[in-house]
Amino acid sequence: MRFRFKQPVPLSLLRPPLPASAFRSLSQHSSFGIAFDIDGVILRGANPIGNSQRALRRLYNDSGSLKIPFLFLTNAYSLCDTRRFMLILILGHVELSCCCFVKSHLCGGIPESRRALELSDILGVKILPSQVVQGHSPFKTLLKRYENEFIVATGKGEPDVVMSEYGFKRVVSLDEYASYFSNIDPVAQYKRWTTRQESKCSKNSDKIIHQGYSKKVKAVFVVSDPVDWGRDIQVLCDILTSGGIPGEKSWHQPPLYFAADDLQYQAAFPSERLGMGAFRIALESVFNRIHEKPLELTCFGKPNPLVFRNAETILGHLLQSDVRRGNGDPGPGSPSFKTLYMIGDNPLVDIKGAQQAGHPWFSILTRSGVFRQRENHTQYPADLVVDTVEDAVAFILKREDAS
Amino acid sequence: MRFRFKQPVPLSLLRPPLPASAFRSLSQHSSFGIAFDIDGVILRGANPIGNSQRALRRLYNDSGSLKIPFLFLTNAYSLCDTRRFMLILILGHVELSCCCFVKSHLCGGIPESRRALELSDILGVKILPSQVVQGHSPFKTLLKRYENEFIVATGKGEPDVVMSEYGFKRVVSLDEYASYFSNIDPVAQYKRWTTRQESKCSKNSDKIIHQGYSKKVKAVFVVSDPVDWGRDIQVLCDILTSGGIPGEKSWHQPPLYFAADDLQYQAAFPSERLGMGAFRIALESVFNRIHEKPLELTCFGKPNPLVFRNAETILGHLLQSDVRRGNGDPGPGSPSFKTLYMIGDNPLVDIKGAQQAGHPWFSILTRSGVFRQRENHTQYPADLVVDTVEDAVAFILKREDAS
Repeated sequence: MRFRFKQPVPLSLLRPPLPASAFRSLSQHSSFGIAFDIDGVILRGANPIGNSQRALRRLYNDSGSLKIPFLFLTNAYSLCDTRRFMLILILGHVELSCCCFVKSHLCGGIPESRRALELSDILGVKILPSQVVQGHSPFKTLLKRYENEFIVATGKGEPDVVMSEYGFKRVVSLDEYASYFSNIDPVAQYKRWTTRQESKCSKNSDKIIHQGYSKKVKAVFVVSDPVDWGRDIQVLCDILTSGGIPGEKSWHQPPLYFAADDLQYQAAFPSERLGMGAFRIALESVFNRIHEKPLELTCFGKPNPLVFRNAETILGHLLQSDVRRGNGDPGPGSPSFKTLYMIGDNPLVDIKGAQQAGHPWFSILTRSGVFRQRENHTQYPADLVVDTVEDAVAFILKREDAS
Repeated sequence: MRFRFKQPVPLSLLRPPLPASAFRSLSQHSSFGIAFDIDGVILRGANPIGNSQRALRRLYNDSGSLKIPFLFLTNAYSLCDTRRFMLILILGHVELSCCCFVKSHLCGGIPESRRALELSDILGVKILPSQVVQGHSPFKTLLKRYENEFIVATGKGEPDVVMSEYGFKRVVSLDEYASYFSNIDPVAQYKRWTTRQESKCSKNSDKIIHQGYSKKVKAVFVVSDPVDWGRDIQVLCDILTSGGIPGEKSWHQPPLYFAADDLQYQAAFPSERLGMGAFRIALESVFNRIHEKPLELTCFGKPNPLVFRNAETILGHLLQSDVRRGNGDPGPGSPSFKTLYMIGDNPLVDIKGAQQAGHPWFSILTRSGVFRQRENHTQYPADLVVDTVEDAVAFILKREDAS
């Protein structure tokens, strides 16, 4: 069985050079920074909400350079924007080739560099790749362990491209992996769709299973919200109950990593939609019924406190980059923030996470997404509750005397 | 919102006239009957196993008329056969038009009449529609309650056609139902497939939701194994937590009916595949996390003892039809069987069911599907364990002195 491992895309294609102007005068306000959730705070589906464009512009100077250090801290992210593709087509060959590439990955599970291009276009401000922290971003920390191991990645978009751009050299999508095993999905013939991968099913692939020659899967990564739940739950059960080779039986379960654990999130539909946490519950409940040893897994993303520590470090780097450019001096060592603001719409994810992270995090809950109540959330009360992200930014700038 | 309700297909198209010869001499052996499971006993995927063709021929006279009353008792059924369609194309216009119809429903969740045509062709014997009892067959008993109510049906194949042929007049498939609500499936844009229904999404359909004009769903039927688990779990949660109108909130849950509850079954893949019971577990675990009131549902199909009582009645009718044709007299009133044999491969479904049904059921467990052990099953030991269905039939005919 030969898997085609993805080649990382040349960074030159993904990261526009960082203009020094982007940091001019950033250090004037180095005592605080802001982390924004995206779905239900900045966007609903593909549309900006709560005057998010106007709110974000207040964090830049008139010249368009960054004034307040901020980043986006998102678990899942439901945007699938096609307008933008049409807009960029007119910008000539280089932009076109770049943005065609972007388009092909617009729909979830995409690298931070492409998210930055996407958000810059929709929000009308210059977003840097380092300002986009997704649920799967911490997977980079596992590179040392799995860089040259055979791993499987699943989720909407192109999870294998995301992982290969993090540096994982032997990653295949679950789409492709499943296509090597004939009849592994018993309802495949009822699915009237074409997957990215042509089916590799053959007598040979059957032989591979039966003779146990198949590569052992060393770890599985759920990078973004799974699309084909039934197929994914079946194949994940096959991999995880078999020690990495469908059709075999083993007590050893390869490690399973989730980019997030959101039960629900606010997308374009009027009521909340099921997220990666719901898929995790479905997989876990089925797995634990067919396998004696309970499913073991690790969830990254909010509310994991590590995500907030990581955000603090990145905001510090933004500031240091600025300092290296000679714009002020925040003092020796890594810059420390007096206050970091987390603006989110989900008490169980954004507010709980900020509370667990502790100092210097200050939580602001908006009523523009999952949370809609008049009073504060009872289980995870935020430090402040406002209607929109614009209200939140207005409060912060006034409190920090930075308007 | 206008739903297109299916028109029942003229029975003349589906049920070939019953030849009197089909029953000749049936009453010679009226003291026993046989119920066969299909997947893992008679077929694996589309292929006969355990010499099932030869075994079944022993239940007919040389003239092809039925000698021993038998039927198929199946929950899920994984066959998707395209060979047959090619074979029947040569049989002229009437057969062609009929069998084209069959072809369009071959893949699961199809009426008993078409199953009978399908099995007759593959097994080389004349199977009558009344000899095919599927997991969803008992849904007919709910006709009085829902005949004119708005209901939703889901599962592989054409669940709405199955239900409309049972007589339900206002049934729509979940495929079509979901297509009326824009953005109800947050990962729809990542699915590279075309559903049977064109999307009905429009501003109007949104209005229907927001103004609460949508029809209330009075009941949901899971007719066969769901194909799109993620979409189905999301939409079922929407319907069941809202009292029948997605986007609303209600404590009243419309009734939910499952045709079966098989956790796993033996299909074409070397190891078992997840069945309708696994989907039920996934749905239930997610529903119970987002809704305070636990999910309420009813499962038909084996091992439900009602299914075995129903099978006993049908076998009795087979015999009575024979008696009406003047072939012997089993005595006054409904014929009673000394022994009814259940031949299955799944201890938790076939054997447990036969045991719960009690007299006159005798359970035979084959090693050709889910069960593969040398010794009898510990939790639900069968009355007899054999390797194949051919061994089972040989045992029965010898025991009944009917070979």
